[in-house]
Amino acid sequence: MENTTLVPAGVMHSEFVRILKKIGFSDPKAEKCAEIFTSNSIDGIYTHGVNRFPRFVSNVKNGFFKPDAEPSLIHSAGALEQWNGNLGPGPLNAVFATDRAGELADQNGIGLVTLAFTNHWMRAGYYGWQAAKKGYVFLAWTNAEANMSAWGATDPRLGNNPFVIAAPYENEAIVLDFAMTQFSYGKMELYKSENKQLPYAGGFDTKGQLTKDPGEILLSWRALPIGYWKGAGLALLLDILAAVLSGGRSTAEITGSKKETGAEYGVSQVFIAINLKRLHNYPSIGDTTRQIIDFLHQSVPENENSSIRYPGENVLNVRKHNLEAGIPVNKKVWNEIIAL
Amino acid sequence: MENTTLVPAGVMHSEFVRILKKIGFSDPKAEKCAEIFTSNSIDGIYTHGVNRFPRFVSNVKNGFFKPDAEPSLIHSAGALEQWNGNLGPGPLNAVFATDRAGELADQNGIGLVTLAFTNHWMRAGYYGWQAAKKGYVFLAWTNAEANMSAWGATDPRLGNNPFVIAAPYENEAIVLDFAMTQFSYGKMELYKSENKQLPYAGGFDTKGQLTKDPGEILLSWRALPIGYWKGAGLALLLDILAAVLSGGRSTAEITGSKKETGAEYGVSQVFIAINLKRLHNYPSIGDTTRQIIDFLHQSVPENENSSIRYPGENVLNVRKHNLEAGIPVNKKVWNEIIAL
Repeated sequence: MENTTLVPAGVMHSEFVRILKKIGFSDPKAEKCAEIFTSNSIDGIYTHGVNRFPRFVSNVKNGFFKPDAEPSLIHSAGALEQWNGNLGPGPLNAVFATDRAGELADQNGIGLVTLAFTNHWMRAGYYGWQAAKKGYVFLAWTNAEANMSAWGATDPRLGNNPFVIAAPYENEAIVLDFAMTQFSYGKMELYKSENKQLPYAGGFDTKGQLTKDPGEILLSWRALPIGYWKGAGLALLLDILAAVLSGGRSTAEITGSKKETGAEYGVSQVFIAINLKRLHNYPSIGDTTRQIIDFLHQSVPENENSSIRYPGENVLNVRKHNLEAGIPVNKKVWNEIIAL
Repeated sequence: MENTTLVPAGVMHSEFVRILKKIGFSDPKAEKCAEIFTSNSIDGIYTHGVNRFPRFVSNVKNGFFKPDAEPSLIHSAGALEQWNGNLGPGPLNAVFATDRAGELADQNGIGLVTLAFTNHWMRAGYYGWQAAKKGYVFLAWTNAEANMSAWGATDPRLGNNPFVIAAPYENEAIVLDFAMTQFSYGKMELYKSENKQLPYAGGFDTKGQLTKDPGEILLSWRALPIGYWKGAGLALLLDILAAVLSGGRSTAEITGSKKETGAEYGVSQVFIAINLKRLHNYPSIGDTTRQIIDFLHQSVPENENSSIRYPGENVLNVRKHNLEAGIPVNKKVWNEIIAL
């Protein structure tokens, strides 16, 4: 595509490090944060990688994300810990919380860590891969500003609250990373920028009709919850659990402060890790998972173009391709980044 | 409706107790099991209450569900315990596991209990209400026989794997109880028995077209996953986690044995409880939840008939109504039951 440039992963990483240092990140924090943004891009999740980097930088420059802040322990209760994200960089806080949940799981079989007052973690799946590759079953979710209506309503009251569930598989992982909207706003923005229609209805237009037109949905701000009322319910419960378990802010509060400041900041997150080595059936877990995946792969495809995959399976192909060929980036986005 | 009879809750409970004792349940087990089936019916979940009672009895009579079996501990690892359901009655095993997860959460902040070789728990929401009314945040799920295709496939490879998330609210609870199919097979059977179309497309017909006709979907056995590929992915991950964490059987194995015997038995379940009293913000949790619910209730309704509700909100109305007016039961179903 003529409006796309291929950026080698190493080049992207160096650019991100350069910019992050310039806006106040220490060397190791710039390295790690750049690694996360680059890795998300290598894996093909451009909307939560390279495409979102400029907005992240702007939120740091405007003081909403504190480049040097680190999580601090608020309260410990056995296998459960509540941490304050201190408005630090969301991806770095989330990496910390994922590791800490794993440590608690090493001690207690299961570990739960909550983060209050943290920031957008970018791609939920990153932390799923991180934990599952170390041998943990992992569940985590975040709340967010309201961008989805309650079922039967027209104004945004629910976050899309991405949820990740991951399990080890072979030497890699099975990682399901999904938002409560049928399509993320990032994805809809991408489709709109490419003048494409969504493959399925993704929300309501301003007249209340279901539509595949991403522009109409970005106008009405009425993205469709997955499974209609079910996804709306799940978004609500994930918000309640995130706010209640962390003692942090709810979607209502995040939305309120965004109206005042223009920035989404201070979100609440939950991280749960389970250490498979602590289970009686640990030696046979690889076989169990393989048998489930084999059963899935033996499906009868709908047509010759169907490929039956587990969540995360295609990431391995995209990752390999982008590492070899370079990461495809919209030229406008890349020019904006190198000018930072 | 002329084919419906109103059964007082007490009468239903006594009938269930009578029948359960007749098929080998001890007095206390018959009482508790009858209470669960009756409570699900009072709450309006007839498909997983009174309507399913005859099939439950038949599975006991045929030896698939063991009326006197109780869960036994396989392995303990800190805040996590793996139990064998010993093919006992699913609802009784699930009540036990819910309580046990709560006890582990009392000690460790969070508690996880798995059940291998248990049976259909009927209504997921029952355990959500049970835990949340005692002050726990609660997540639980079960796997099941395959009744949903992988995304892009035509034959059943995934269970609908119901998932419940619950939190305390006022003196009651917010309880989200949802299967991975847009409509449960029980619900589709009910619509079909009433010659009604589904309100939204609920699956594919035998020609691969989306349809609202429950009869067509019961024929193709291709129920629509919530959120298309997302619900298919979630069903897969819930099965992997249930089988891996419990050491029990996967959807593939449950489906295999059903093909041989005609019965769905020996499923795997996960129960997670979090004790809110162990959190630093416990005193303000009621306010946090109320503020989230108030924000939801302030939504702009789509039209004058829209009612904006949290999951479980309407259950309170149905419960009150059915306790006062009697539980509406299909006459054919009730005659079948009283003849047992």
